Amino acid sequence: MTEYKIALLGFGGVNRALAQLIADKNSRWADELGFKLKIVGVSDLFLGSVINKDGLDAHELAAVPAAKGSLKALRGGSDEPANESVIRFAGADIVAEATFTNPVDGEPATTFCRWALEKGISVVTTNKGPVALHAQSLKALAESTGARFEFEGSVMSGTPVIRLAKESLAGSEIIGFKGILNGTSNFVLSSMETGLDFSSAVAKAQALGYAEADPTADVEGHDVRLKVVILANELLGAKLKPSDVLCKGISEITAEDITEATKANARWKLIGSAEKLSDGSISASVSPQLLPSTDALAGVSGATNAITFNTAILGPVTVVGAGAGRFETAFALLADIVSIHKHNTQSGK
Amino acid sequence: MTEYKIALLGFGGVNRALAQLIADKNSRWADELGFKLKIVGVSDLFLGSVINKDGLDAHELAAVPAAKGSLKALRGGSDEPANESVIRFAGADIVAEATFTNPVDGEPATTFCRWALEKGISVVTTNKGPVALHAQSLKALAESTGARFEFEGSVMSGTPVIRLAKESLAGSEIIGFKGILNGTSNFVLSSMETGLDFSSAVAKAQALGYAEADPTADVEGHDVRLKVVILANELLGAKLKPSDVLCKGISEITAEDITEATKANARWKLIGSAEKLSDGSISASVSPQLLPSTDALAGVSGATNAITFNTAILGPVTVVGAGAGRFETAFALLADIVSIHKHNTQSGK
Repeated sequence: MTEYKIALLGFGGVNRALAQLIADKNSRWADELGFKLKIVGVSDLFLGSVINKDGLDAHELAAVPAAKGSLKALRGGSDEPANESVIRFAGADIVAEATFTNPVDGEPATTFCRWALEKGISVVTTNKGPVALHAQSLKALAESTGARFEFEGSVMSGTPVIRLAKESLAGSEIIGFKGILNGTSNFVLSSMETGLDFSSAVAKAQALGYAEADPTADVEGHDVRLKVVILANELLGAKLKPSDVLCKGISEITAEDITEATKANARWKLIGSAEKLSDGSISASVSPQLLPSTDALAGVSGATNAITFNTAILGPVTVVGAGAGRFETAFALLADIVSIHKHNTQSGK
Repeated sequence: MTEYKIALLGFGGVNRALAQLIADKNSRWADELGFKLKIVGVSDLFLGSVINKDGLDAHELAAVPAAKGSLKALRGGSDEPANESVIRFAGADIVAEATFTNPVDGEPATTFCRWALEKGISVVTTNKGPVALHAQSLKALAESTGARFEFEGSVMSGTPVIRLAKESLAGSEIIGFKGILNGTSNFVLSSMETGLDFSSAVAKAQALGYAEADPTADVEGHDVRLKVVILANELLGAKLKPSDVLCKGISEITAEDITEATKANARWKLIGSAEKLSDGSISASVSPQLLPSTDALAGVSGATNAITFNTAILGPVTVVGAGAGRFETAFALLADIVSIHKHNTQSGK
């Protein structure tokens, strides 16, 4: 039985959910997926860090209180983060990186990814920063050391859109995509259809935990812009930086706009899209669009996400699924590990 | 450069579209997918057969007239079908099986599949008959000779639902699915929403080429039943025969039913579904269901197909895409070959 030793960077909702899944499902995975996971280190800016090369108790980890320095209470624990030690010296085969997204330079997550990949340790991440800003160099680094760099969870949480496009749609000639890639803004637009104005809809999203205290990144399209960059670069061979993508959010959509749309049997959606033009260049944008009810994305309500891939041979293929959620996003990390395992197995590693 | 020699069984719309794709895309595939395809044999009940171990001209093949015995005009051609020779003696690495679906015993397609697999020749098929009725024994036979048996095109044409579920959703714990899996019946229901009664809607579908002269298999759910059997057996570990699946079609849906549904902001859809029950058994059925407009499948209109997989970890994941079409279905054969190639490459074959 293959056992992968993993180190968790960032121990917020996502990696805590992964620890919970490991606690609950490890035996099942041994049967169904052909491997088990053993957590050998955890580091978190707020909670501290812990290393145990023999393996930490996943149940115990998942139940650690969300209090400053709380990892210190575990054997081998400290109330200080120790990212470098956890990455370099815990003996991990795979680092699960789920620290905060820095949309400016992707740090410190990008450095964490480099430390791991340099040592030939594979990285699975849900963090848009390193992927949107540095995917090419991180992939090249992984290639050079025989490690893997996987990031399914950076777009639409665990809904497997990147893997679907790259693997199952290989040969279909993807010429573009358009998607509802931010649950908060879609929830706000859906709420406005029940009669709320923009501010009240944002307040409702905040009250329900869908929007942060500062909702700018969600409602102004900045979050979607990073996802468009990730998808365009990975699937269309673009070399976009976030600043290359025109970006307009939903904050100027009025209650009246929504009423008019409903009358016309249409819906306003914040759409992130990119397409390959005939000269080979890539056009990408984020903007509110009025979709007719016949559009496959028009029926996607609330915090759900969806994306339509336009292909030359197969026509449009749309995937609708979770775009957020602790366990849903943790599943992306598992799916990335499944992919690494499949690669290892088939290449006889 | 890897080159796969393929034999085409049945030269109706699907394999003819595959020949056209090979004619147009072979160089592109060499670059993007890492292989080329060479057609070494074709057999068709109506058109006859042709074998050329050095490779047939795909352009010429794609342009063969749809007239009885027309393959005779090609070098090495005959006006008689020669399935067994084409399978056994043309030197094919892969057989692309796209003959007619026989829902009773899957013949003669199943025999064609066996002939190939026995010799270690892989089979890619779009034919529901052999898959719904004999998938387990054909997969076992393939396993025993080191061949592959792939059938993405048996459900939702080239829309990669089987591969998505088996590969990208591995570990998500699929507990069931429900789908709109027949374009003709969905087109009929959509047409009834414009005011037609059932008979007129069927006539319209026939006039547009969506429905056959005898529409029974489509509107009574028999086609969907085979697809439910394929998906339940492959994805949920069921061992269903078609007769195990309760099946009710849409022929009793009246114009009045449709009007009532519209008033209630709901839509009638012919749903094929299966789920794993808590005792481990599988419940599967085909029946018209009234979906509220909030259901991800409710917005799927016309000849489009869609399926929602319910997963324990990731929640629902819905895929919407083509369910028919010559090129869309031929893409499934290509995708199956991509999968075979990936397996061969990674296992060092």
